[in-house]
Amino acid sequence: MNMLSKKSIVDAGSLEPEDIELILSNADSFLEISRRDVKKVPTLRGKTVINLFFEPSTRTRTSFEIAAKRLSADIINFSSSSSSLKKGESIIDTLKTILSMNVDLIVIRHSDSGTVKMIDRFVDIPVINAGDGKYQHPTQALLDLYTIQKRFGKFEGLKVAIVGDFLDSRVARSDMDLFEKMGMEVTIVAPTMFLPEDYSEMNVRHNIDEVIKDTDILYILRMQLERQDRKFYPSVMEYNRFLTLDMKRLEEMKPGSVVMHPGPVNRGTEITDEVMDVGGTLGEKIAIEEQVTYGVAIRMAILYLILG
Amino acid sequence: MNMLSKKSIVDAGSLEPEDIELILSNADSFLEISRRDVKKVPTLRGKTVINLFFEPSTRTRTSFEIAAKRLSADIINFSSSSSSLKKGESIIDTLKTILSMNVDLIVIRHSDSGTVKMIDRFVDIPVINAGDGKYQHPTQALLDLYTIQKRFGKFEGLKVAIVGDFLDSRVARSDMDLFEKMGMEVTIVAPTMFLPEDYSEMNVRHNIDEVIKDTDILYILRMQLERQDRKFYPSVMEYNRFLTLDMKRLEEMKPGSVVMHPGPVNRGTEITDEVMDVGGTLGEKIAIEEQVTYGVAIRMAILYLILG
Amino acid sequence: MNMLSKKSIVDAGSLEPEDIELILSNADSFLEISRRDVKKVPTLRGKTVINLFFEPSTRTRTSFEIAAKRLSADIINFSSSSSSLKKGESIIDTLKTILSMNVDLIVIRHSDSGTVKMIDRFVDIPVINAGDGKYQHPTQALLDLYTIQKRFGKFEGLKVAIVGDFLDSRVARSDMDLFEKMGMEVTIVAPTMFLPEDYSEMNVRHNIDEVIKDTDILYILRMQLERQDRKFYPSVMEYNRFLTLDMKRLEEMKPGSVVMHPGPVNRGTEITDEVMDVGGTLGEKIAIEEQVTYGVAIRMAILYLILG
Repeated sequence: MNMLSKKSIVDAGSLEPEDIELILSNADSFLEISRRDVKKVPTLRGKTVINLFFEPSTRTRTSFEIAAKRLSADIINFSSSSSSLKKGESIIDTLKTILSMNVDLIVIRHSDSGTVKMIDRFVDIPVINAGDGKYQHPTQALLDLYTIQKRFGKFEGLKVAIVGDFLDSRVARSDMDLFEKMGMEVTIVAPTMFLPEDYSEMNVRHNIDEVIKDTDILYILRMQLERQDRKFYPSVMEYNRFLTLDMKRLEEMKPGSVVMHPGPVNRGTEITDEVMDVGGTLGEKIAIEEQVTYGVAIRMAILYLILG
Repeated sequence: MNMLSKKSIVDAGSLEPEDIELILSNADSFLEISRRDVKKVPTLRGKTVINLFFEPSTRTRTSFEIAAKRLSADIINFSSSSSSLKKGESIIDTLKTILSMNVDLIVIRHSDSGTVKMIDRFVDIPVINAGDGKYQHPTQALLDLYTIQKRFGKFEGLKVAIVGDFLDSRVARSDMDLFEKMGMEVTIVAPTMFLPEDYSEMNVRHNIDEVIKDTDILYILRMQLERQDRKFYPSVMEYNRFLTLDMKRLEEMKPGSVVMHPGPVNRGTEITDEVMDVGGTLGEKIAIEEQVTYGVAIRMAILYLILG
Repeated sequence: MNMLSKKSIVDAGSLEPEDIELILSNADSFLEISRRDVKKVPTLRGKTVINLFFEPSTRTRTSFEIAAKRLSADIINFSSSSSSLKKGESIIDTLKTILSMNVDLIVIRHSDSGTVKMIDRFVDIPVINAGDGKYQHPTQALLDLYTIQKRFGKFEGLKVAIVGDFLDSRVARSDMDLFEKMGMEVTIVAPTMFLPEDYSEMNVRHNIDEVIKDTDILYILRMQLERQDRKFYPSVMEYNRFLTLDMKRLEEMKPGSVVMHPGPVNRGTEITDEVMDVGGTLGEKIAIEEQVTYGVAIRMAILYLILG
């Protein structure tokens, strides 16, 4: 029934170009449904989807929940805080339980890298990775790609600068996989402490000012302040000096260029308040809300292509 | 599409008399739906409603959830404990995210007075205040009004005594706005520590015995024991002496009079156990359960009038 | 409307044989629905069911939620952590609130034995006990019975050994009620510390090896490690020696015999990892996943028979 080449969406890197194209080309019609007066189609009536979130999440969980409901699927939220994992149940046994309830698809977020890949091997039903550790967040990368397609109408030759804590970011890893696959030129802007040990094959800059005038897409990563166990990159002041998007830098960006961020933004760290609230022509550069809108459409398209 | 004069329900005071009448007159048909064997109509199929609760709540959240589901809307619970506000996201950015998902209406509860008014100005879609700080709880006031209408068939000239911690109560503030607007005579029964600094224009008594024989409606407020940061009004014993509804006082109330409370009741503080569990003719005076039933109908009417 | 002889399912012991037969014979058609492509029938459209869980639960809560949704009922999760019970509301007042919202059925789990029985007497609508304290878990017993029926096609004369902490187990108490009623021979395998004070009328063994070769059904209880306030049965090593199902014991079981467990399993305590993950003919003895599958069907049958 799955019209994609694999049963699951586990990582961005292993998506075939035809799968990516199929997802993006289907997103338009689902985008239209969310803009209707009656935002609901009966496509997935009688399907059971589980939102299996082992990490707290609002945006992604809600995005999947809205996507599933607009397709008339039944979606069950299963979050770790209310779960029997408190009782020391193994993940494998939790999955066996879910499978035994004749569930059609599992959306999973987990704090450990690679967990979703392991799960996908274990279960026969489709799995969608909604973020695992520092490894992957493929539906984020797909919605980012869709946002770029809607803005530029093409991918080939676009210059993307990914700014911030690359090392800890599953979004960055997934985006990089897809952006390069689609022929974009990716530069990473980060101090060495935010980079993997061997970054010799990556195109790296240390200061946002080196790329700001020339980039088409400024993709700003979230500082995972709540996850950091090491000291914060020397200080917010240092961060601001080399990496933060402020008004001066926004004004230097070239016509038609866009600013993206996976959200939620740490205002004052990655992006200043002034930039977040700017209107007019400069405000049109900020594509953060579009990313959220397109996220629902992309997830509807994926659910449809897997279960429809 | 909204048949009310404003897009949102933010406070009771700014509701126009025609809006109030429209909501009350529509509630009857929705009350009837909840008493059917099949408690569901397709009116709001394909609408997306968000329950955005920043404070814990059962009654109000569940009341809105049941109201939305009986109208066939999709309702998403978004509570702060599982939300990305843990990650330091600003309320404005949370709202932008929700709006970007093409949501049709937001029901909001927040611990800070005035937050919902601020949010209503910020967003284009309708907002319903489900309680903010000590400021307002307008749907509670509307269901209270509906309860009075069903009991008395009129408002003009009815005597209402609002008893208890007026200062900390958003319910009291909203009720007072509507009760006076509908021509009822409102007396506050409270010690000065439960009153605003300047209460010279309010009709105030300090002892429930001064009003008990003459009032049509005894509206008893909840002591927000969990929210108080100052010491409890000298002691429960003092409270009982001047403010608590016990059997002796209940028996003194005049024929046809009613007792109301927004719930949940602190048994033994505002109302004794004996009164809470009384049956027969005296028991008929207690309208607390009717308030809950009418609450679902009022919220269905509001959702319908805003989104239908 | 209720086709069962009582309005509620409170304990296994008071179920009439005709009720049990009716539930089991209806389960087959609901099992079939969960295996369809479109797992949904409109049977309970417009019914409102409340999942009132005062204890954390995944399996049982999700099982009821899926069962209700596949029957098209509206189901509202009401868990104590987000509830106004934090505000000191009494259970009776919580129930009055729920009843006032015109709810059709309440599924309840509570940590105190007997609470559900008390509630059932108090409310007019049907109640389903989803586990209360150490007292009863009747839907678990019914799904266990259904699992046995599907495996053996009969009950009369089957030998069941219930292994583990009988004293603290509501599952054991409910199972024992039903198993004996259906003519099975029940043996309890437990040290005296896991038995009630007077167990003289029970058929007791202290070592699993005394029953392993001869039993048709090995029903292994969960050690409620998280609920124990006394020291763990002398040590896990002692537990393993007398009670744990390991490969050697599994191999000794007779042809056609089955292993059951209410889940989640404490791997290494009640059952070894090796047994949990075994495949082939020996793996076919393990009926734990079937129990979960049949649980959804049994709960659909019960909801249908009560509300349909």
